Amino acid sequence: MIRTHDAGSLRATDAGSTVTLAGWVARRRDHGGVIFVDLRDGSGVVQVVFREEDAHALRNEYCVKVTGEVTRRPEGNENPELPTGEIEVTATELEVLSEAAPLPLPVDDQVTAGDDVRLKYRYLDLRRSGPAAAMRLRSRANQLARTVLHERDFLEIETPTLTRSTPEGARDFLVPVRLQPGSWYALPQSPQLFKQLLMVGGMERYYQIARCYRDEDFRADRQPEFTQLDIEMSFVTSDDVIDLGEEIVAALWSDLANHRIPRPIPRITWHDAMARYGSDKPDLRYGVELTELTDYLRGTQFRVFAGAIDAGGYVGAVVMPGGAAQTRKELDGWQDWAKARGAKGLAYVVLDAETGEARGPVAKNLSAEHLAGLADAVGAKPGDAIFFAASPNSREAQELLGAARIEIAKRANLVDESAWAFCWVVDAPMFEKTDEGDWTAVHHPFTSPNAEWVDRFEEAPDRALAYAYDIVCNGNEIGGGSIRIHRRDVQQRVFDLLGITPEEAQDKFGFLLEAFSYGPPPHGGIAFGWDRVCMLLAGADSIREVIAFPKTRGGYDPLTGAPTPITGQQRAEAGIDAKPKPQQVPHTGTAGPAAPVADPT
Amino acid sequence: MIRTHDAGSLRATDAGSTVTLAGWVARRRDHGGVIFVDLRDGSGVVQVVFREEDAHALRNEYCVKVTGEVTRRPEGNENPELPTGEIEVTATELEVLSEAAPLPLPVDDQVTAGDDVRLKYRYLDLRRSGPAAAMRLRSRANQLARTVLHERDFLEIETPTLTRSTPEGARDFLVPVRLQPGSWYALPQSPQLFKQLLMVGGMERYYQIARCYRDEDFRADRQPEFTQLDIEMSFVTSDDVIDLGEEIVAALWSDLANHRIPRPIPRITWHDAMARYGSDKPDLRYGVELTELTDYLRGTQFRVFAGAIDAGGYVGAVVMPGGAAQTRKELDGWQDWAKARGAKGLAYVVLDAETGEARGPVAKNLSAEHLAGLADAVGAKPGDAIFFAASPNSREAQELLGAARIEIAKRANLVDESAWAFCWVVDAPMFEKTDEGDWTAVHHPFTSPNAEWVDRFEEAPDRALAYAYDIVCNGNEIGGGSIRIHRRDVQQRVFDLLGITPEEAQDKFGFLLEAFSYGPPPHGGIAFGWDRVCMLLAGADSIREVIAFPKTRGGYDPLTGAPTPITGQQRAEAGIDAKPKPQQVPHTGTAGPAAPVADPT
Repeated sequence: MIRTHDAGSLRATDAGSTVTLAGWVARRRDHGGVIFVDLRDGSGVVQVVFREEDAHALRNEYCVKVTGEVTRRPEGNENPELPTGEIEVTATELEVLSEAAPLPLPVDDQVTAGDDVRLKYRYLDLRRSGPAAAMRLRSRANQLARTVLHERDFLEIETPTLTRSTPEGARDFLVPVRLQPGSWYALPQSPQLFKQLLMVGGMERYYQIARCYRDEDFRADRQPEFTQLDIEMSFVTSDDVIDLGEEIVAALWSDLANHRIPRPIPRITWHDAMARYGSDKPDLRYGVELTELTDYLRGTQFRVFAGAIDAGGYVGAVVMPGGAAQTRKELDGWQDWAKARGAKGLAYVVLDAETGEARGPVAKNLSAEHLAGLADAVGAKPGDAIFFAASPNSREAQELLGAARIEIAKRANLVDESAWAFCWVVDAPMFEKTDEGDWTAVHHPFTSPNAEWVDRFEEAPDRALAYAYDIVCNGNEIGGGSIRIHRRDVQQRVFDLLGITPEEAQDKFGFLLEAFSYGPPPHGGIAFGWDRVCMLLAGADSIREVIAFPKTRGGYDPLTGAPTPITGQQRAEAGIDAKPKPQQVPHTGTAGPAAPVADPT
Repeated sequence: MIRTHDAGSLRATDAGSTVTLAGWVARRRDHGGVIFVDLRDGSGVVQVVFREEDAHALRNEYCVKVTGEVTRRPEGNENPELPTGEIEVTATELEVLSEAAPLPLPVDDQVTAGDDVRLKYRYLDLRRSGPAAAMRLRSRANQLARTVLHERDFLEIETPTLTRSTPEGARDFLVPVRLQPGSWYALPQSPQLFKQLLMVGGMERYYQIARCYRDEDFRADRQPEFTQLDIEMSFVTSDDVIDLGEEIVAALWSDLANHRIPRPIPRITWHDAMARYGSDKPDLRYGVELTELTDYLRGTQFRVFAGAIDAGGYVGAVVMPGGAAQTRKELDGWQDWAKARGAKGLAYVVLDAETGEARGPVAKNLSAEHLAGLADAVGAKPGDAIFFAASPNSREAQELLGAARIEIAKRANLVDESAWAFCWVVDAPMFEKTDEGDWTAVHHPFTSPNAEWVDRFEEAPDRALAYAYDIVCNGNEIGGGSIRIHRRDVQQRVFDLLGITPEEAQDKFGFLLEAFSYGPPPHGGIAFGWDRVCMLLAGADSIREVIAFPKTRGGYDPLTGAPTPITGQQRAEAGIDAKPKPQQVPHTGTAGPAAPVADPT
């Protein structure tokens, strides 16, 4: 090392030592004859005092090597804010290791530069304390999770990233294969199929911090490549996977957020979560629960509610504490908010703060009897507002109320930003209807129905439950998993219900079905959205803050300029325009069907 | 867990306990009325005794759950080969978790199935003890390396894998970008540029077990995706990186090969390695060093040698102990061997085992005087063979002798297969001539010339030395790195010498050059070829043995059938045939050049 000490490690006990430091000029103050420089390296900052001319040339972010003596600061000049604040280094030698041009982005914790400038000069951005701390936190998170897993005999196994296109709900990124012109690899959306194959292969306990790829239209906070902590175990029940998941989050939050997560983490069924919070990832930092009013309002003359009730649907409400104090403009704002979400509007009643009398557009449509008991039915007090949703589709109405609940908490300032609220959402439904009326898998088609439904999910697909579990933190789904199907017949029946023909199934994941012919073990697993986990731990508001070199929303990298056009030569060489051979034949070898080997017993 | 114990963990002290096990039927022996089953799980094998009918249905590789009592085996029936050999489990309950069809690949350690069958049924292959152990070893290797690095405050940082095409000697894999039609990402050949940017960003100590991609013509034992342990450090000298590299290999070999590597690992200069071993990755498990004879043979009439000497080239020899005993056919075989390597042949002399007299085609071309001193000059004894190479291009001749040296060691059985011989090859040349007569970088263009050459490498590019170091184990290069250039002016001069125009440099890695304008620290690093490291530790003869799902030589995956043709819809959606916009404009945001912010000092 060209330095003897880390700048941030120096203390009063080092006074008298001669040290050599190397780092960056964080700040320079010229006091005529004496120049003070804050020297920053990975460990922190120390004040260096120059009495020589040559320090005049220093500018911010020059990279320098300094030799000098550690001395106690003069009485009264200590800086208690700084770990090194009792001392300073009196420089005797200075070497400029490299100079810095005028900075396009100041290396300053107060910086408010736009994201594009920060990303273009990410190497300057990373010198700031916040971004640097986020990188350190993420590295530490990896280490903590791995420690939990290695202590439990998990194997870290890498799965391929040049693989076969598989259908998991999003588009695959594709890669042309020069050696097999006309054929393409796909980048994996997850290691799902490979980790299941590893279980068939007897690996029993697998994990990987895995890069995954989804070619989605970039919504806020999506990246084309992302990372998940991917785990799979054999011979387990849901409880085993849930227990492991808790061990991991407990280790992370204890070390990185100084928070002991009370365990067991509460579990809530998917149906309860929808009924009480209108969400399958409820934020439990606050109450504001939904109340179903379908029975209470049965017989109402109000067309909107009656229509939903008669159609076998749902009417419900959520209370905004103190919401009656909102201005007319604020109450109208809720209508705009609801319309922006695709709803027709948001019916409401406000309860007079003094009399408790119900007012507002819905009030006049409800009978005196319904109005009289309403506050008790929904748990509202005088001065509150009550928002309603009604729909023949229960889930739609619940989700609108769930979104209103989150918005209420925000507007009424009910969120304790320092709180951590975890829960598991369990017993999710296996299937839901698509807009076209077909059945689709709520999780993915390899999720196992639970014991109650495994032999009869066809009888009532909408009610069949899965061995699935999602872990939620402050309203963010941070991980999810399931016990998988390992019986070939069950997998076939699920495909049948999903309308996946045997030919399609064979074409897309015939290799998994075939593997299930050879003694697959019962197995299950979980995957954590690692970017989001780290974001929450870092207290950041975007996953970009915990990614070293993130892309903008269009998948553009302002630093390298990727993606770029390619040359005609690259295009020709990569075989992008080659026609595939009609029959898929391996390039080398003879990987056709092998003759079965007789069971030797 | 659906089991109470691991099968391989049971011992005599467990006798009397009732246990539930889950695993696979490894072997079944029907002794009429009593059936013995070897039950295998991840921990090992135990014998289970069934006295019930239902076990008749069991076949190899059925996945089963068994409850029973642990009992000591009857006197004389113990199996000392097996850790569980003192006991057996007398089954009282059996549940077949899944059945197995007749096996295309027997799960047997003696199996000699071809690679294609093994890869197609990799999930069966992985149930065998050898492949399973290789996966465990690799997981452990990761853990050991990470422990060394975390103890030294390294940060694990993920770098992007959807990035910009960069020229590092091989072709990039390309990925079309749907959101920017006509533009493509490249998969990275290494994180080289990003890790250097992290150093500019003040991260100081970075590592990553990184997936890398090279679209090469598959030579033996290459994979389109491979893994390297990638490391970079700031403010270091070569010695610091070498020391860290030794810590890592020492930890690996100590734990996984039960071998204490003597340290410091010997260093040999690149020029010495070429002169003594004819290789930049010498196998030091045996001697058989090369002898240069250019001076000794000066003045010879033998045209082949005289031509090389007069051209300022090289003549040298390597001795095969006992090589005089080879048959004429064996000696002719050496000619074929040399021709297969592209040489014209391999001149040789054999020394009569009794008289020491030199015979063979070259002998009659050499003067009596040259013949008389030859054995002493090359260190040969009666009964040995002496192979010669001569060329105006010294390196070409040395490499031929180096290859002959390896072949000699093999044929004369000189390789101690249980030995481990490590060395660092240091002081490599910066540049070498291409066949077209241009200069090319021996390592890569970011490698720093050493202090002696940094200001004058243009004076004698062929003699300029780099701060580069490769680590070699038993003749395999397992890692390599260098101190990087961090001065923009030096980087520019290297590009100039390599014939990279300013425009090309700007186009290909302008972002790195720009980063070097902002106070880059001195830095260097190393990357280990992780597949190869694990292969050596596993005692395997191919990197495929330490990869969970490797591909065949053509990049084909016999298991999933990847790569595959894509549909017209995929092709259209991915924008594969879109014309790029003439001007590269980011899809969103305004990532144009930012206005410099004035240095506030």
